[in-house]
Amino acid sequence: MKLFIPGPVDVAEDVLQKMATPMISHRGKDVTKLQKSISEKLQKVFFTQNTILLSTSSGSGLMEAAVRCCTSKGAAVFSVGAFGDRWGKMAKSNGVPVDVFKVEPGIPTLPENVDKVLATGKYDLVTVTHNETSTGVMNPVREIGDVIKKYPDVIYCVDTVSSMGGIKIGVDECGIDICVTSTQKCLGLPPGLSICSISEKAVERAKTIKNRGLYFDLVELYTFVKEKDFQYPSTPSLPHMFALDYQLTKILEIEGLENRFKRHEQLAIRVREWADTYFKVLAKEGYQSLTVTTIENTRGIDVGTLVKSLEADGFLIGNGYGDLKDKTFRIAHMAERTIDEIDDLLTRINKKLGFKL
Amino acid sequence: MKLFIPGPVDVAEDVLQKMATPMISHRGKDVTKLQKSISEKLQKVFFTQNTILLSTSSGSGLMEAAVRCCTSKGAAVFSVGAFGDRWGKMAKSNGVPVDVFKVEPGIPTLPENVDKVLATGKYDLVTVTHNETSTGVMNPVREIGDVIKKYPDVIYCVDTVSSMGGIKIGVDECGIDICVTSTQKCLGLPPGLSICSISEKAVERAKTIKNRGLYFDLVELYTFVKEKDFQYPSTPSLPHMFALDYQLTKILEIEGLENRFKRHEQLAIRVREWADTYFKVLAKEGYQSLTVTTIENTRGIDVGTLVKSLEADGFLIGNGYGDLKDKTFRIAHMAERTIDEIDDLLTRINKKLGFKL
Repeated sequence: MKLFIPGPVDVAEDVLQKMATPMISHRGKDVTKLQKSISEKLQKVFFTQNTILLSTSSGSGLMEAAVRCCTSKGAAVFSVGAFGDRWGKMAKSNGVPVDVFKVEPGIPTLPENVDKVLATGKYDLVTVTHNETSTGVMNPVREIGDVIKKYPDVIYCVDTVSSMGGIKIGVDECGIDICVTSTQKCLGLPPGLSICSISEKAVERAKTIKNRGLYFDLVELYTFVKEKDFQYPSTPSLPHMFALDYQLTKILEIEGLENRFKRHEQLAIRVREWADTYFKVLAKEGYQSLTVTTIENTRGIDVGTLVKSLEADGFLIGNGYGDLKDKTFRIAHMAERTIDEIDDLLTRINKKLGFKL
Repeated sequence: MKLFIPGPVDVAEDVLQKMATPMISHRGKDVTKLQKSISEKLQKVFFTQNTILLSTSSGSGLMEAAVRCCTSKGAAVFSVGAFGDRWGKMAKSNGVPVDVFKVEPGIPTLPENVDKVLATGKYDLVTVTHNETSTGVMNPVREIGDVIKKYPDVIYCVDTVSSMGGIKIGVDECGIDICVTSTQKCLGLPPGLSICSISEKAVERAKTIKNRGLYFDLVELYTFVKEKDFQYPSTPSLPHMFALDYQLTKILEIEGLENRFKRHEQLAIRVREWADTYFKVLAKEGYQSLTVTTIENTRGIDVGTLVKSLEADGFLIGNGYGDLKDKTFRIAHMAERTIDEIDDLLTRINKKLGFKL
């Protein structure tokens, strides 16, 4: 089965094999060396000098950690879809004061709206979804960052779960305090490990917050990296660490970051052109994702039937997410996917739907 | 390197290979089938009819979930060492009212003490460490369970992280409401996934608790199993699920549970006899662990030198944990270890320390 769903993605065979590396102690020098190596490589992928934290959890784990550990006055959650809403739910379920600012499907988070909300002085933490997997909207995290710089007490958190490693996100340039991602999307690994970069400002904020919990306490994770020589408070998923370290070398030294970004852009353009020809891209122009395209079902096709028929051929695409089920469908183009594979998929869809090439 | 540390353990090569299984969607029928199969097998290992929950995290994740989600009046944490203390820390860091009842290293949690504490009426949740990895103490969870049955509003939580799968723990017989374990100990898998069984009573309690968080919300995990056909709220570590399903079949159908328990007992007896001959087992007689032996350094040997010298030979044993460093050392005998491997290790230690056989 070839996966064109927005995660989990197909993992290269040699990377999968690293998941089968024999175990080591999680307290020895080898694990310090491993986590340090991963951190240094991730700093390059994130374009940051900030500290890298790993967590054995899905991306949701560190997203929840960010909003729980670093909100004092209140969190302003800017949502452009299901995964933005999720950040609101995380805040509420932890008793964190939060307001969710939501737009219609396909519409991005605009810097001027963030400015207006922050001007109220009610919030000291902002969450933004860089790349919303449900709607295929990509938000202008740099321009939003420029606005946030005017508010020095605000912690800027960005969900880059479905974009980091496929799209250039200059974490330091954008002024992102906590940038969260996970392994099973553009980084091209199996699910099971999440990653964030954290600024000193966010760590200082977290130190002032009570009841941060333990497993997702960002101060605890940070302290183990800084004071215990790149270790992890509990036993981490060593298989993911072995595979991540290996895959990061492949990304940085074999494909090269710039080439990887370019490939993701080319894949996106190809799918977008096809979608514009036969359907309509849901996301507003200028804010269309480079890793997943959500296609409006303007022809009223039976999406379920299309998905099943492709699945029978060994190609898995995504139905619409949540409320957008059947009204949209989704093609992900991330991690190791190639133009040939995308062309093969689109040709098959054309045939099934009776489109002429 | 052969690991004789109390986790991570060495993983059989065929099990490791399952970690390299190609990815599937985390929302399809295949993943439902996989999680259902794992659950049914784990119910046999746990000797329970309760619901099995999986969490992509270390065992600490679900331990924290239990004390956070299910304490209303107060938690009574019975600690016999570092991992018992950890449960106290988890409660405190979540603002959960808690008292920690701690004994000296080597001493167990006695049912009569639990009875005395519960008789105060101050607590509606109890945590007990079945097998304390720092001191090598194994607590009488069944006898403690008999006491707890007298207090119908108390939720009984047991940490079986370093024992489940190696020692018979009849979860239902003992009346354990939440029984937590993780993959990297007696189950013989890599770290990265934790598991618990949960009773209906614990689920009902959790529903009454505010601010349970999201990632470790036991109600959310339970609802996805019960109402969404054995699925997981976020993207789980699929590699661990593939490997766990496979390994559980090996445990149940190839070795057989009873044989596995017997092997663990034989390994423990061998190490204990050796320890009693040349040193002293830290844990009180009658409460000595069947999976890890903590040995009192009665001869004042240089533990660090012994550990390093064995490591150079490719054998990793554990130094004492925390305060017990250098005062004790630890030999784990769990997962796939054999009598021959233990004999080989002990012979080497004898040679290094100049003991006669």
